[in-house]
Amino acid sequence: MATMLCFICTDLCIAPAALKSALGAAVARSFNCISVDGDMSTNDTVIALANGAAGTPIIQSPDDPGYEAFAQALGFVTQDLAKKIARDGEGSSKFVTVNVAGAESYEQAHAVGRAVTRYNLVKTCIWGEDFNWGRVAAAIGASGEAVDPGTVEIAIGGLRAFAAGEPVEYDQDQAATIMKGREIEISIDLGMGAQSATCWSCDLTPTFVELNA
Amino acid sequence: MATMLCFICTDLCIAPAALKSALGAAVARSFNCISVDGDMSTNDTVIALANGAAGTPIIQSPDDPGYEAFAQALGFVTQDLAKKIARDGEGSSKFVTVNVAGAESYEQAHAVGRAVTRYNLVKTCIWGEDFNWGRVAAAIGASGEAVDPGTVEIAIGGLRAFAAGEPVEYDQDQAATIMKGREIEISIDLGMGAQSATCWSCDLTPTFVELNA
Repeated sequence: MATMLCFICTDLCIAPAALKSALGAAVARSFNCISVDGDMSTNDTVIALANGAAGTPIIQSPDDPGYEAFAQALGFVTQDLAKKIARDGEGSSKFVTVNVAGAESYEQAHAVGRAVTRYNLVKTCIWGEDFNWGRVAAAIGASGEAVDPGTVEIAIGGLRAFAAGEPVEYDQDQAATIMKGREIEISIDLGMGAQSATCWSCDLTPTFVELNA
Repeated sequence: MATMLCFICTDLCIAPAALKSALGAAVARSFNCISVDGDMSTNDTVIALANGAAGTPIIQSPDDPGYEAFAQALGFVTQDLAKKIARDGEGSSKFVTVNVAGAESYEQAHAVGRAVTRYNLVKTCIWGEDFNWGRVAAAIGASGEAVDPGTVEIAIGGLRAFAAGEPVEYDQDQAATIMKGREIEISIDLGMGAQSATCWSCDLTPTFVELNA
């Protein structure tokens, strides 16, 4: 969470157990999907508070009416906040989205996405505006997940660079233009299943080092 | 291994299985204990070759005479090479040794050591010559190992900064002098057992980012 305290308040009538359940699910797909420096901090905290002021029937469990709508809204809020943390990363100049599709499970997709967002050598390349899909491939391999290079596809900014175990020829000018953008999107398809996950990050810059020295 | 190919040759008469066993043990306590950028590379390779030119009796297994002496020599060579990789880390200005003692197992000591050597915010502080034991504590906590802050001790350059769950007063001038050194030694005692491990790393500098952009 990049050393962040997050407090979320709602006037919804929701019991602690149901609120905890919704918060856990929302955090898993938001704050636990971002990386700025790759590190965990002793301060990383998310607290949700419900005061019941709305006066609506109390939501006791995920099966009760209203829970799903609340969970979705909470997911929207936490994802928005999480992305803002990555976008505002110390010294960062670019916002990075890593979409992992074609995974056997959400956990696998998430593990690959996290590995790519935490890989320092991907982050430095993004700062340097280098269309370096090879480092993305290395990060996928280093994730520890059992993936088959023969089915993996990698694209940056929609421009495909690797497929069927081989580099794909791409337009160098288009690649350069993509890397000049402030928002970089890395898309990975593992070609193994139907599950997906998205992680967010930022580039690693000399300014980051100086701010944290 | 910081993107490195390592080839070790010996004229010893040693069978493949015994050589593999000795190499595995040596790599575990050398190349797998260093971190430059925290990343694994597709190129990281260690190969050992024995040509038998010595003409001595073939060492078939770890129980055979000569195995232990060879294993120790191999351990010395691999550790020396591994430390040289960390010392020569791209853009680095300082060499870092992290000693973890008082662990319940070697694996636990190694996991804590690796977490500290990979923690970007520790590495930037070392570049900035900041005696920031708090980030070492955060890295220990983020290692995922179950440790009790009440028994952990942290010292940098032999100067104790944290013990019995409390910061320890230390001489600021001495701390500044320690951090100005080219070799920084972080000592951690988990206070849980008798096992230990050592990991090696370097600082994270703006030059590292520029070289890898």
